[in-house]
Amino acid sequence: MTHHPVEKTPVTLLGLGAMGTALARAWLAAGHPLTVWNRTPARAAALAAEGATVAETAAEAVAANGLVVVCLLDDASVEEVLAGTDLAGKDLVDLVTGTPAQARARAARSRERGARYLDGAVMAVPPMIGAAQAGGYVLYSGSTEVFERHRETLAVPAGTVHVGEDAGFAALYDVALLSAMYGMFAGAAHAFALIRKEDIDPAALAPLLADWLVAMAPSVHTTAGRLRSGDYTGSVVSSLAMQVAGTPTFLSTAEEQGVSPELLSPYFTLMRRRLAEGGGAEDLTGVIDLLVRHG
Amino acid sequence: MTHHPVEKTPVTLLGLGAMGTALARAWLAAGHPLTVWNRTPARAAALAAEGATVAETAAEAVAANGLVVVCLLDDASVEEVLAGTDLAGKDLVDLVTGTPAQARARAARSRERGARYLDGAVMAVPPMIGAAQAGGYVLYSGSTEVFERHRETLAVPAGTVHVGEDAGFAALYDVALLSAMYGMFAGAAHAFALIRKEDIDPAALAPLLADWLVAMAPSVHTTAGRLRSGDYTGSVVSSLAMQVAGTPTFLSTAEEQGVSPELLSPYFTLMRRRLAEGGGAEDLTGVIDLLVRHG
Ligand SMILES: NC(=O)c1ccc[n+]([C@@H]2O[C@H](COP(=O)([O-])OP(=O)(O)OC[C@H]3O[C@@H](n4cnc5c(N)ncnc54)[C@H](OP(=O)(O)O)[C@@H]3O)[C@@H](O)[C@H]2O)c1
Ligand SMILES: NC(=O)c1ccc[n+]([C@@H]2O[C@H](COP(=O)([O-])OP(=O)(O)OC[C@H]3O[C@@H](n4cnc5c(N)ncnc54)[C@H](OP(=O)(O)O)[C@@H]3O)[C@@H](O)[C@H]2O)c1
Repeated sequence: MTHHPVEKTPVTLLGLGAMGTALARAWLAAGHPLTVWNRTPARAAALAAEGATVAETAAEAVAANGLVVVCLLDDASVEEVLAGTDLAGKDLVDLVTGTPAQARARAARSRERGARYLDGAVMAVPPMIGAAQAGGYVLYSGSTEVFERHRETLAVPAGTVHVGEDAGFAALYDVALLSAMYGMFAGAAHAFALIRKEDIDPAALAPLLADWLVAMAPSVHTTAGRLRSGDYTGSVVSSLAMQVAGTPTFLSTAEEQGVSPELLSPYFTLMRRRLAEGGGAEDLTGVIDLLVRHG
Repeated sequence: MTHHPVEKTPVTLLGLGAMGTALARAWLAAGHPLTVWNRTPARAAALAAEGATVAETAAEAVAANGLVVVCLLDDASVEEVLAGTDLAGKDLVDLVTGTPAQARARAARSRERGARYLDGAVMAVPPMIGAAQAGGYVLYSGSTEVFERHRETLAVPAGTVHVGEDAGFAALYDVALLSAMYGMFAGAAHAFALIRKEDIDPAALAPLLADWLVAMAPSVHTTAGRLRSGDYTGSVVSSLAMQVAGTPTFLSTAEEQGVSPELLSPYFTLMRRRLAEGGGAEDLTGVIDLLVRHG
């Protein structure tokens, strides 16, 4: 009697760009049978040598397996590539970056065509794929059934987090996290610009800056708590009024250092508006309300 | 024979607001003889009961000790309060928030009046003072002599970091760190606004957001390295061109969710400008150059 190795779920992967290729390598390395297709066939050659089956058409690739993962450029290319395929009965996992509305429309279209739909947003760059210690992960939303059935397979390239049955939520979380990151990058850019004309090594500022941002990041938990409760004034350490009073120092320093305030002033403008509307005893949570359009 | 306790340096402290009172308590708790003065005498009463000597005038307080710490509201109040005092031979430590130019002018004026000047910027809120594990610290710049002579005394309320002989640097670092923090807060505000109209608990987003910001914060080390070397294109993982191509998804998502892009778009505008100027193969470092005015 021989021991049969545990059967690994076969995967079809459409799209072998930087991210698709990294995903393919991760599944091959973990022993998953893999069928790949790419518009430009040359990109599949190396993977064929590593054990992947290369399909001639997207339709052939989709037909090969029940689990179909899509990692193309954008939603338009997904529409184009899936047009000539039979999705009936498939578990479709779409890792293409897009808006929540695009993901929801894609989910609806996939259901019409008989597929179960799971949307994914990759919170990692290709070098982090297949490297668990790198901390990358994929946000998933949509069909919990698909997520549960393929949990282990999906966990091969990176960590997984399912954020809801609404297919748009993965894209929404993705955009939320990256938007916050760009805000942090904008703030850091302003900080580095401020020291430019001084005899200060940017590498002397960097450790203090990294530590400060890391120390301040957990304040989002406090913000979340205030948003839930609606109480923006309880246990406030630095009031909006006090912080608005401090803003001239920031703007004057930018002026002194010859730095444009354009990345800093929009937030200060909202702080002042909230103060004018009577939020002086709040912390900064009220600024969020000013961003949301009503009507 | 009795053991003489180690003599603790006597401190004069002008200003007993929220921060001054916290500093006073820390020095008293550590056994430093302390002379205090505050414009509104009532605020000194509790400290007197805890062992502080209360001076009737600022001049009397300054005369009492060689080390004089100032923690008033702003630079104008420092000018006013110090006007009637004799600073000759004093070690003056100014913890008042201000711009680098204000600190440099204050240093020059103090030297004229015969004092050695050390500027400080408190990177902590009052509850963190005297609580070493809270991680607060004070940035110092200016007289290294004063900093070294009073190193232990200055380390009582919070950690200390001396960032240069230029009296303006503590203020500059302070403003740089807080500006970066406001950028991060602006990004987080946009993120929370994005989920507002959905059935998503802000406390479900918060842990992912905090972890993501903490994971991305160390990228400032890479930025510092690029600024030093002037090489913005070596080993770029996500090029500016690729990131600019992604910005419509962020702006469309804001639009879909009914969120104003005003905190996000200024950074995207600079990214596009840098791309138009030929920086497509760079990472985001080139945006910093666009903030600095030349001429
Ligand atoms: N790279 C990252 O750091 C990263 C991180 C997170 C998420 N993502 C997302 O992952 C997805 C793929 O990214 P990537 O970095 O792999 O992009 P990429 O390297 O530019 O590859 C794009 C892929 O899409 C294919 N494609 C484009 N238009 C097509 C069309 N009209 N018909 C058929 N195929 C088409 C390309 O095929 P050809 O080879 O024929 O051109 C290629 O396989 C994107 O949605 C991206 O936003 C990427
Ligand atoms: N609190 C914080 O979280 C924090 C954090 C970092 C840095 N700082 C900085 O620390 C300094 C003090 O802050 P704070 O929180 O203690 O402020 P505060 O609670 O508002 O106290 C202000 C102090 O300044 C005095 N003052 C104001 N104008 C004066 C004048 N014209 N003449 C004489 N005294 C005057 C006040 O005296 P009266 O009692 O007579 O009004 C009071 O002692 C500020 O520069 C602040 O930016 C504060």
